Amino acid sequence: MTVLDDKGASPPMSHAPADTPNLSAVRTDVDVLLTAFLDRKAHLAPGPELAPLFTVLSRLLGRGKRLRPQLCLAGWHAGGGGGDQSTALNVAAALELFQAFALIHDDVMDGSDLRRGRPTAHRALAAAYTNDGGRRSKAEAHGVSAAILLGDLALVWSDDLLHSAGLGDEALKRIMPLVDTMRTELVYGQYLDLRSADRLSDDVEAALRVVRYKTAKYTVEWPLRLGAVLAGAAPHVLDACSAFALPLGEAFQLRDDLLGVFGDPAETGKPVGDDIREGKATVLMALAVQRASAAEKQMLRTLVGSPAATDDDILRVKAVLQRTGAQQHVERMINARRETALAVLDQTVFPTVATRVLREIVQIATVRQA
Amino acid sequence: MTVLDDKGASPPMSHAPADTPNLSAVRTDVDVLLTAFLDRKAHLAPGPELAPLFTVLSRLLGRGKRLRPQLCLAGWHAGGGGGDQSTALNVAAALELFQAFALIHDDVMDGSDLRRGRPTAHRALAAAYTNDGGRRSKAEAHGVSAAILLGDLALVWSDDLLHSAGLGDEALKRIMPLVDTMRTELVYGQYLDLRSADRLSDDVEAALRVVRYKTAKYTVEWPLRLGAVLAGAAPHVLDACSAFALPLGEAFQLRDDLLGVFGDPAETGKPVGDDIREGKATVLMALAVQRASAAEKQMLRTLVGSPAATDDDILRVKAVLQRTGAQQHVERMINARRETALAVLDQTVFPTVATRVLREIVQIATVRQA
Repeated sequence: MTVLDDKGASPPMSHAPADTPNLSAVRTDVDVLLTAFLDRKAHLAPGPELAPLFTVLSRLLGRGKRLRPQLCLAGWHAGGGGGDQSTALNVAAALELFQAFALIHDDVMDGSDLRRGRPTAHRALAAAYTNDGGRRSKAEAHGVSAAILLGDLALVWSDDLLHSAGLGDEALKRIMPLVDTMRTELVYGQYLDLRSADRLSDDVEAALRVVRYKTAKYTVEWPLRLGAVLAGAAPHVLDACSAFALPLGEAFQLRDDLLGVFGDPAETGKPVGDDIREGKATVLMALAVQRASAAEKQMLRTLVGSPAATDDDILRVKAVLQRTGAQQHVERMINARRETALAVLDQTVFPTVATRVLREIVQIATVRQA
Repeated sequence: MTVLDDKGASPPMSHAPADTPNLSAVRTDVDVLLTAFLDRKAHLAPGPELAPLFTVLSRLLGRGKRLRPQLCLAGWHAGGGGGDQSTALNVAAALELFQAFALIHDDVMDGSDLRRGRPTAHRALAAAYTNDGGRRSKAEAHGVSAAILLGDLALVWSDDLLHSAGLGDEALKRIMPLVDTMRTELVYGQYLDLRSADRLSDDVEAALRVVRYKTAKYTVEWPLRLGAVLAGAAPHVLDACSAFALPLGEAFQLRDDLLGVFGDPAETGKPVGDDIREGKATVLMALAVQRASAAEKQMLRTLVGSPAATDDDILRVKAVLQRTGAQQHVERMINARRETALAVLDQTVFPTVATRVLREIVQIATVRQA
């Protein structure tokens, strides 16, 4: 089970003319808000023993590519928000804390060792424990427990930041229902994903539903809509945001699934075959099962979700994904969704500053190599 | 590491004269709110596959003794809240969802099998997975991951309930800072507790600090103050709430620590010696270490925190806790704190309905057998 990280989705470069707000500064602005927030918390912390929580969280936060903040700010401008982006930036910072929560718990659930090129939270907290004199024999269990708590803290703080950011009652009242829905939908998506893992299935619709909850709505639609709602966007603008976000989000995840199997490990940072060994129930796999021969199905049943699968086994599975045409079909699905998203941008009159960033995000999300 | 469950702390019986609000109805009122909330969520859930999350959460919620709601309502009346308890009841229901989150993650971290006499969330979700055709070999890992997600969901929903309960902007604005602080302090307390486990220490102050964060503030002070703040209590009333809550909360946890070692398993539902095998860094243990002979210290170092400790080993550790006078000292600490809490009630003019319930909670929390 995985929450889509936005590694590889670099923030759009700035083409902003001097007279339009500079969206590419979002990364810096969000960094400043997150650092100030964590500094406040650290200042109030009841003891030095809590230091590892701050170290690990700020390191993780420092390495995000700020895709959700970019979308939130683009939504702000799409919704007619003015030059003062401060409320949208605070919401964007809260989204990054929420994503940190999602990634920390996700890595615990997957038992992953690396995240954004560094040890995952549970590994880092296990190391901190032994460095600090904790028993080696208990370090791994400690790391997992501490990471569960750190994820909880990031979730609690994503809320705290919203409350303490001086958003104003009106803005808060407008966005909290969306935030609540976003949070619930992410957990639902994660659970559906978890449940479907290790069950080789030909149900493309079920796989697409997981994609919708886990990525399309959480990673793209809600950040964009949150910004737009903050700006007081008209209903037709919000509809346009969703019409753009959902196909883009699906394309984003479908690309991620392809990269998980066919990507260059040097680029993706993921060992070859991990997705196959984990038995991820992707659209790609469901399509292959639909089209596989009896013998191929039998082989997939044996190898997909088997941690013991050898590199040769992985190659045989990849061959089936290609021979059945599943890989090309997913490429076509990505293209169709990219075209739909771009068409929405063509048909909708968003302010240039928003349209420009959204176009760049479409490219980054669907054509990336990592 | 443990969050104090309120099993055994039965809701006060009603002595309420007809003309005062019936605080003992709190349990029913909170049940109704929680059931209605979960029904709304279940109605909106995107698929039947999510059913296990609802089953397990509502079963857990159904078995709480509603200590925090009792305190929240007592605070409401202490703060001068009127007969319409609805806002306080909604906050009380949110506190129960938050406690469900804390218990679910706590049981995952401790690897506990039973909670409130039933399988813990991760065990129940593992069983649901296999019943539903999931691979036996993956059931345990699935249960843990699903329970992490269910805990996350309960946390998200404790917030959702606050937002959707029609508390009104004014009430929300008043309590959110307290709620945020409460959440952060619980996670801090859990982390400090986790960190101190398996490190035999004579630091009574450190052990007391964990008690303060994990129990005194979270379980007693914040629920009481939340109710009082909702009612618009005057500052001196809030001070009285804390002056009452902190010693009571410490006494509550100290009693729990004694029961964890010397309690009757038939009453506590905890296997004898579990706290010792887990190496819980309690005030009781710190006092024993302070007073132990070199030989006794050596023995404690070997046996405390050793899952392999035999029942004879446990008896030897208990003997040290008694011979050193640590057990009696903790009894005296409990009595001193109970007296302080009761003295606050004597010196403070809370409305009778509040004082009565708070007196009953003092008895339940400090004199209980389970």
